[in-house]
Amino acid sequence: MTRILALFLAVSLTVAPASAVWPLPQSFQTGSSALRLSPRFDIQLSVNHASQDLRDAVSRTKFHLKNDKLGRLVVGRGSSDEQAVASAPTLALLTLSLTGPGSESIATEAQKLLGERDEAYALSIPSDGSTATITANSTLGLYRGLTTFEQLWYHYNGHTYTIQAPIEVEDFPAYPYRGLMLDTARNYFPVDDIKRTLDAMSMVKINTFHWHVVDSQSFPLQIPGFENISAAGAYASSSVYSAANVRDIVSYAGARGIDVIMEIDTPGHTSVISKAYPEHIACPESTPWATYANEPPAGQLRFVQPETAEFAANLLGAAAALTSSAYFNTGGDELNTACYEQDEPTTAILNQTGLTLYDALDNFTATTHKRLIDSGKTPIVWEEMVLNYNVTSLSNETLVLVWISSNNVAAVAQKGYKLIHAASDYFYLDCGAGAWVGDFPQGNSWCDPFKSWQKSYTFDPVSGLTETEKTLVQGGQHLLWTEQSGPENLDSIVWPRAASSAELFWSGPGGNVSAALPRLHNVAYRMRTRGVKAISLQPEWCAIRPGVCDLTA
Amino acid sequence: MTRILALFLAVSLTVAPASAVWPLPQSFQTGSSALRLSPRFDIQLSVNHASQDLRDAVSRTKFHLKNDKLGRLVVGRGSSDEQAVASAPTLALLTLSLTGPGSESIATEAQKLLGERDEAYALSIPSDGSTATITANSTLGLYRGLTTFEQLWYHYNGHTYTIQAPIEVEDFPAYPYRGLMLDTARNYFPVDDIKRTLDAMSMVKINTFHWHVVDSQSFPLQIPGFENISAAGAYASSSVYSAANVRDIVSYAGARGIDVIMEIDTPGHTSVISKAYPEHIACPESTPWATYANEPPAGQLRFVQPETAEFAANLLGAAAALTSSAYFNTGGDELNTACYEQDEPTTAILNQTGLTLYDALDNFTATTHKRLIDSGKTPIVWEEMVLNYNVTSLSNETLVLVWISSNNVAAVAQKGYKLIHAASDYFYLDCGAGAWVGDFPQGNSWCDPFKSWQKSYTFDPVSGLTETEKTLVQGGQHLLWTEQSGPENLDSIVWPRAASSAELFWSGPGGNVSAALPRLHNVAYRMRTRGVKAISLQPEWCAIRPGVCDLTA
Repeated sequence: MTRILALFLAVSLTVAPASAVWPLPQSFQTGSSALRLSPRFDIQLSVNHASQDLRDAVSRTKFHLKNDKLGRLVVGRGSSDEQAVASAPTLALLTLSLTGPGSESIATEAQKLLGERDEAYALSIPSDGSTATITANSTLGLYRGLTTFEQLWYHYNGHTYTIQAPIEVEDFPAYPYRGLMLDTARNYFPVDDIKRTLDAMSMVKINTFHWHVVDSQSFPLQIPGFENISAAGAYASSSVYSAANVRDIVSYAGARGIDVIMEIDTPGHTSVISKAYPEHIACPESTPWATYANEPPAGQLRFVQPETAEFAANLLGAAAALTSSAYFNTGGDELNTACYEQDEPTTAILNQTGLTLYDALDNFTATTHKRLIDSGKTPIVWEEMVLNYNVTSLSNETLVLVWISSNNVAAVAQKGYKLIHAASDYFYLDCGAGAWVGDFPQGNSWCDPFKSWQKSYTFDPVSGLTETEKTLVQGGQHLLWTEQSGPENLDSIVWPRAASSAELFWSGPGGNVSAALPRLHNVAYRMRTRGVKAISLQPEWCAIRPGVCDLTA
Repeated sequence: MTRILALFLAVSLTVAPASAVWPLPQSFQTGSSALRLSPRFDIQLSVNHASQDLRDAVSRTKFHLKNDKLGRLVVGRGSSDEQAVASAPTLALLTLSLTGPGSESIATEAQKLLGERDEAYALSIPSDGSTATITANSTLGLYRGLTTFEQLWYHYNGHTYTIQAPIEVEDFPAYPYRGLMLDTARNYFPVDDIKRTLDAMSMVKINTFHWHVVDSQSFPLQIPGFENISAAGAYASSSVYSAANVRDIVSYAGARGIDVIMEIDTPGHTSVISKAYPEHIACPESTPWATYANEPPAGQLRFVQPETAEFAANLLGAAAALTSSAYFNTGGDELNTACYEQDEPTTAILNQTGLTLYDALDNFTATTHKRLIDSGKTPIVWEEMVLNYNVTSLSNETLVLVWISSNNVAAVAQKGYKLIHAASDYFYLDCGAGAWVGDFPQGNSWCDPFKSWQKSYTFDPVSGLTETEKTLVQGGQHLLWTEQSGPENLDSIVWPRAASSAELFWSGPGGNVSAALPRLHNVAYRMRTRGVKAISLQPEWCAIRPGVCDLTA
């Protein structure tokens, strides 16, 4: 079935979508028969030497099928289904089988290069109670199928059931990259908050955790050989991610089909490094901060110094060694030139060598990126590196994050770089909550207004691009910068909003917000059953009456 | 000390406010000596026949002094205080004494008419370790003093201490009404969420819980004699407030110096009553909803029917009997005339009697308000009742909530009514999160943008009023309408933002946001120690460096 047909089906279901799968599969055929899970329901792996993470995923699915206990989002919450369900056939078995040769772990598959992962799967649930199947070429595909399977079932009065059997799904992502960025430097988030976020991400098939782990305000990452930075620059000795924590997070994410791409933002956003290595930082905490940085505190790597480039390469290399991803993000945004103009060591070298600041940045980037590429990592950078700083030493494989404005997408594509949508005008979760800098009573967020789920959901990822340029779009992500966030509002500011880009980049663009809303309510309600505090998008009166609270209803 | 002096002190402390009391006391004199609480620290009541709620409050204060364990919000979180604290005198005793005659309970005092409460107190803490004192004319005043006392102490390495002894406070509220409104009808909130909110309110001396308990979407209140409405109109049988729940909430609030003012919004906002009493509701769930109501579902009391007025009087009377407040809110906002124009029973009566719709509304209001006044309650209404519907039957004592716009304050005052600030352009906590009605991709909140704490903090409560009109201002409140809120984001959407109006209406207007911010960080951090998920207003780097992240720092 094509995407157009899938959308048609979704629209036709607006009155009461019995199967509220998110993201919407590429092909999704449903019937109208009741089917319930047998009390003996089991999931069997027809996979040779199944990986431990696949076996664990099966156990989690069985747990969720027992414990979600989500009532259908209709008036009565499923009471009208009771009679049909009581006499329905029961499903006793789901089998998972691989159509491909090997059986790598989910994590191994999820950590490959973007073009080399296989997330496709097929799911079949007969209506007569005979065995349901998920087939895929990879364990990662089987895992994606399991997350779809989990969303098909509702609970009422002791029964776990669907009223849409038979169900046939053929599914694969429109884009290989579907991410979520979390900044753990402006404010710190305990490991358990990150794991809960990974759980929620996996429910909507987000496959990338972009971990903006450190920044000018704090350095919570313990990097082997550089522990003195976190010792001096974390908010507290308890507010750190040890190497063991990072491995734990990478493993937890991998088992959920999520690649952890760490970012150590350089050469800007590095003020805190001055607490351990003052010789490498220009304008540390200089004031007025607004002259030397986009936000306090000022401080950037003194990148024109060869010894600072070597230091940065060592730091990035050691950080990159903590992760299993094929990618590493070196940042490159918001470089402040005033900081360097008043930095004596910087100006001395520039005068001596005749290099411009951007020549030197090119050299610095060549040094740090070479270290990463030599250790098998593909670099990721923010858009300024290619649009503003004219860094020519970037590898052609470099991924570019477009953040300042979606208007800049075409310019990045015209330079031939693969790109990831992360534009502030669509995907920034922190916009619209007033000014966070002090003494600014009438101030707004710099990226006002609030980016609603509807706004990001209706984004067009290929607007203004040629056919060739369209092939450069790898996907996109929501982002949470945490000047005004912490563990207290992590779930509520992210969920279910970030699910909108998850569907946009899995199912493809063109989705209709009215058809999507009832399914997105299901995302929020199901997340809550699993301890993720996704917020209400509407009064419950509306949530259980699909379409009735539409503007024109 | 005058307010001007108090502000000067606060400004002078911006670098590191050791005592971060919120709301700022009317007079607040501090020294610079260290003083720590003795391990034997105790609080003694020099009060004859002290009420149980006062004795409980003392126990809670002792608990918080032991368990808050809040580090001072400076770099090092108090490590620089360690030496001074180690050799400091210890405080072993705080005594509470009443200067007035009787000893009513805190709840009794808090539930009096606004002008009859006494919340003033004096607090004295000598620097030499000799006995500290709180004196007041009422138990309510003593309780306010306890909540101030709790905010003076920080924790470092086993010591609970201040570095600002001696401390002398003389304090009383600028306005008698300082409230918070919660809508429990769009989405339901369990009793524990309400209690946690009451705890947080008491920390900042908010004295009124405006409980918008029911609305068109759901009716979670079990009213004796009208249980069929909640049985048919609550979201679930578990999503109800029983009479016992209400008594529990009223008692819990009263013990914390908070009056619970319940609102049963009439005659609009009553659609759900049609599920139990269809004969009393016009245009129930009529479509298109936008023709018949400001939000779905449509449905309003058929107030021109005398039997409906009698029904409403009985309903309001029975609900009012559940609370202990001297006030009851009968609503009166957003009446939709199209609903009545197509309602056959309404038009028949109007034609027969020759009354206009607003004549009939006046009669209805006279009937319902008489029932409340006869049972000792003073009515509260929304602004349309006096500005748009020309209801002449209102008692002169009626309090009017200005919500549509702060521009309407003067018009209400000109009519001579006592008023409460609740304007959407300053105090609505739900603005700025995108459209909640469906199928409206580019829609914003109707009251965009987000109302930051700075915005409400800098509100002028007497702008444009004559000296006489100024005396009508009773205070004000933040409000949370819950179309896009539920238990998941209650704390994060309310706190610490709602503390800004708490200080505005206790300390009086004119506060400076730069001086306030470090103290407001303290509010948020201390709330978190008590399980209230108040959000971060800035990166922690800023929170522990007062003033350094100001726009011009």
